[in-house]
Amino acid sequence: MTSMDSPEKNKPLKIFKLLVEYDGTNYHGWQIQPSDASIQNEIQKILSLITQKNIIIHGSGRTDAGVHAIGQVAHFESATSILPEKIQTALNKMLPDDIVIKKCAYAKADFHARYSVKTKTYNYRILNSLMPAAVNRHYSWHIKKSLDINLMQTAADFLVGTRDFKAFEGVGSPKKSTIRKLYKAQFVKEDEIITFIVTGSGFLKFMVRNIVGTLVDVGLGKLTPDEFNEILNSRDRSNAGMTAPPHGLFLKHVEY
Amino acid sequence: MTSMDSPEKNKPLKIFKLLVEYDGTNYHGWQIQPSDASIQNEIQKILSLITQKNIIIHGSGRTDAGVHAIGQVAHFESATSILPEKIQTALNKMLPDDIVIKKCAYAKADFHARYSVKTKTYNYRILNSLMPAAVNRHYSWHIKKSLDINLMQTAADFLVGTRDFKAFEGVGSPKKSTIRKLYKAQFVKEDEIITFIVTGSGFLKFMVRNIVGTLVDVGLGKLTPDEFNEILNSRDRSNAGMTAPPHGLFLKHVEY
Repeated sequence: MTSMDSPEKNKPLKIFKLLVEYDGTNYHGWQIQPSDASIQNEIQKILSLITQKNIIIHGSGRTDAGVHAIGQVAHFESATSILPEKIQTALNKMLPDDIVIKKCAYAKADFHARYSVKTKTYNYRILNSLMPAAVNRHYSWHIKKSLDINLMQTAADFLVGTRDFKAFEGVGSPKKSTIRKLYKAQFVKEDEIITFIVTGSGFLKFMVRNIVGTLVDVGLGKLTPDEFNEILNSRDRSNAGMTAPPHGLFLKHVEY
Repeated sequence: MTSMDSPEKNKPLKIFKLLVEYDGTNYHGWQIQPSDASIQNEIQKILSLITQKNIIIHGSGRTDAGVHAIGQVAHFESATSILPEKIQTALNKMLPDDIVIKKCAYAKADFHARYSVKTKTYNYRILNSLMPAAVNRHYSWHIKKSLDINLMQTAADFLVGTRDFKAFEGVGSPKKSTIRKLYKAQFVKEDEIITFIVTGSGFLKFMVRNIVGTLVDVGLGKLTPDEFNEILNSRDRSNAGMTAPPHGLFLKHVEY
């Protein structure tokens, strides 16, 4: 280093990986919106304060308005010499209490929160009970009529494998390829809570919520599991059921 | 009935019993406050609208600001001919979504939500983990340091039976008798959530929260179970630990 060089310039950029939990109730989703509060923006603002540089964070993917995360992953680059644990502590002190940084660590130079994803796991929670809940009401979709979880599981089994999920892609968000690989699509019931656990290589916009909305039609007896499979094969969104509301959905885990 | 009598006058008063769930986060407790939102007030306002008469409801007891209920019970008297199920439906339509009427039914003429109580069960939830939660943060007390649940249970065993709980009574709220009978005081652990389940004939103001605050001192090793028992026997509030925060507390069930 010569005296002409700024010390900043020579500092190598490090990659920091964040593990983030958030309650999406009061946000317009993960990604920065021009005027609305986003989780990404809350974290970036504070990271930029801490490091005194403009920081951009990259999430494993977006979550929609109202969707929660137990294990969202994000990364950012910075030349800061502040240690990851110190950054984590400072973030948690300054963030609102509906966002928690569960981990902050150095990652390998080639790590990218979005491009390095191997699988993602979402949970979708349904409260299947006569009465809605007051407590926990932001964390499940209340369905009054009794759902047949066995029929729903039979239908969900058609999802596993490498399939074209165009029928469950949100309208107005075309992707070049709508083929994804699902590893797991399982229903678990505990008391009045039915949880749909789904693991895949990746997910299209609204895909989980569109799948859940259509599986609920199966659980209500409006569709048979075979008809569900036909909808999947039709590659036509207009055949599928409603989009399940966001507040039952949790990004549970991202695997790299 | 003569034509001189108003039909209202001759209608016998009926007793209506309500089973109520609420998220206490946004309320200043069950009981009506001069200026702040209370659960009692929200329900009374709407009942008075429905019945076109001024209705007063009586709860099984107060819950403090921020405390939740899964099974609060209340009653009111009314000469209305509207059926209980219709009242329930109307209430749930008009109440904010953090209050749910799970049941509305006629009760016997001598039923009183407060004076007829046999036992009450509270749950207190502790999140015992290094990191706080974003999701569910309004429903547990976060304690970072590891708690020894076995020591806490040993101490809690001293509470069961007919005891004088003056040491755990909130300051500035003297009751004639501070003797209550506890039937159950049990800790259950599931993953990082420790739940204290306590059933008793009745509870003094802040009693559960003062007991939990002191049991946490046992779990942290600051007090031995025997010292906890000495505090109980001392009948002196100044010996006991802190008052646990309200948002971990749930009125779970009232038995008549």
